Amino acid sequence: MAADALGVVAETLHGGGLKEYALEDVQLLPPIANPDKIICVGLNYESHRKETGRPEVAYPTLFNRFANTQIGHGAPVHAPKESTQVDYEGELAVIIGKAGRHIAKSGALDHVAGYSCYNDVSIRDWQRHTSQFTPGKNFMCTGPFGPWMVTSDDIPDPSALTLETRLNGERMQHATTDLLIFSIPVLINYISTFTRLEPGDVIVSGTPGGVGFKRDPQVFMKHGDHVEIEISGIGVLANPVVDAPAPRH
Amino acid sequence: MAADALGVVAETLHGGGLKEYALEDVQLLPPIANPDKIICVGLNYESHRKETGRPEVAYPTLFNRFANTQIGHGAPVHAPKESTQVDYEGELAVIIGKAGRHIAKSGALDHVAGYSCYNDVSIRDWQRHTSQFTPGKNFMCTGPFGPWMVTSDDIPDPSALTLETRLNGERMQHATTDLLIFSIPVLINYISTFTRLEPGDVIVSGTPGGVGFKRDPQVFMKHGDHVEIEISGIGVLANPVVDAPAPRH
Repeated sequence: MAADALGVVAETLHGGGLKEYALEDVQLLPPIANPDKIICVGLNYESHRKETGRPEVAYPTLFNRFANTQIGHGAPVHAPKESTQVDYEGELAVIIGKAGRHIAKSGALDHVAGYSCYNDVSIRDWQRHTSQFTPGKNFMCTGPFGPWMVTSDDIPDPSALTLETRLNGERMQHATTDLLIFSIPVLINYISTFTRLEPGDVIVSGTPGGVGFKRDPQVFMKHGDHVEIEISGIGVLANPVVDAPAPRH
Repeated sequence: MAADALGVVAETLHGGGLKEYALEDVQLLPPIANPDKIICVGLNYESHRKETGRPEVAYPTLFNRFANTQIGHGAPVHAPKESTQVDYEGELAVIIGKAGRHIAKSGALDHVAGYSCYNDVSIRDWQRHTSQFTPGKNFMCTGPFGPWMVTSDDIPDPSALTLETRLNGERMQHATTDLLIFSIPVLINYISTFTRLEPGDVIVSGTPGGVGFKRDPQVFMKHGDHVEIEISGIGVLANPVVDAPAPRH
């Protein structure tokens, strides 16, 4: 099944031919619903590093998400009752298409299947419980990913994109991807030094300045809000925010 | 298939009955080869927190491993050519048997299927590239796990175990699990606040003092070494250390 920017989803039928659906008639899942690995990069735009007050580093800052944090375009972000510090982070997601280890920078983009938008929603107080970000980045239903994957043949240069985050229609983050401190080829080279990248692995490449936690006054997301990540050449990932429902045991 | 401490592995045959193999005739895989989540706890013994010089914290320090880091009992730990700082960390592994979210401390042990030994082998320089431990904890073939799982009916109290790490026969770490800063029920309660635990998920509960990185002089593992983690009531997880082979692309 493939979607295009005209609001039409096409399903290839048995025996050939296409059946088309209006976009509003389908539920989009994350482009990769259950990746083997979701590797996120922190502090990868200078504007965000500076606003957090964290030091310059010589290597990418990496943490992981679990697949059960992910939701598709249009699905609600769950604001957990354990926190009032629910923050957005608009990011470019890189989806691996070809496995490899010790991948050279020069050939790294050959390992990319395509690109998408990611909202690395962060529960700031839980992110800062200790030195490690894990809990604040792994609440369930806090990882909007989509709306779809644009294949790399349509995005030959991932450093030539524009990214914008809007909260209730207001622009909160804006950057061009040439501002990444560690470029996509550098990230793929570094990560593949320690792990074998597999098809479907997702690298979430970092967020620019303008996060809610570092605004004055601070801005956090709450029930009823609407958050959008737009990346040129990809599209708009839009999600409502709701209070997390009581868990089913 | 099940293994016992007498060196016999028994396979249940179709139609009932058991076939027995000598332990040395089989290759043991990690008790859970491909967990949905591997959640590791840092700094969970006071003796290790103090030796690292890290501050006291009110919450568990959590990071993740990918499943492709895991190896079974007897399989070689790969010392990567990118580092000379390959360190052991003997730990008690907790294997989840029953799914749940928002699990109360009082009922937490009901969610445990069993226990095993884990060697959370750490590539110290890569662990310290940035604030986040991810790269140093995720080199492939650095997570010995086993030799088997002992079910929780045989370990009613996981805080009454003794853990020892030996490098080339010499005792390097020794602790009792009542010294965990955050007990197993506290860990399960905290983790299940943000994520749904699933059967097969593994919580690696932390290492005591005595790691090689904090010894004077420092001790690191190298090709030809032999490392063992022994936990009372479980058994001995033993692995050789070898230089990582050149990767297959």
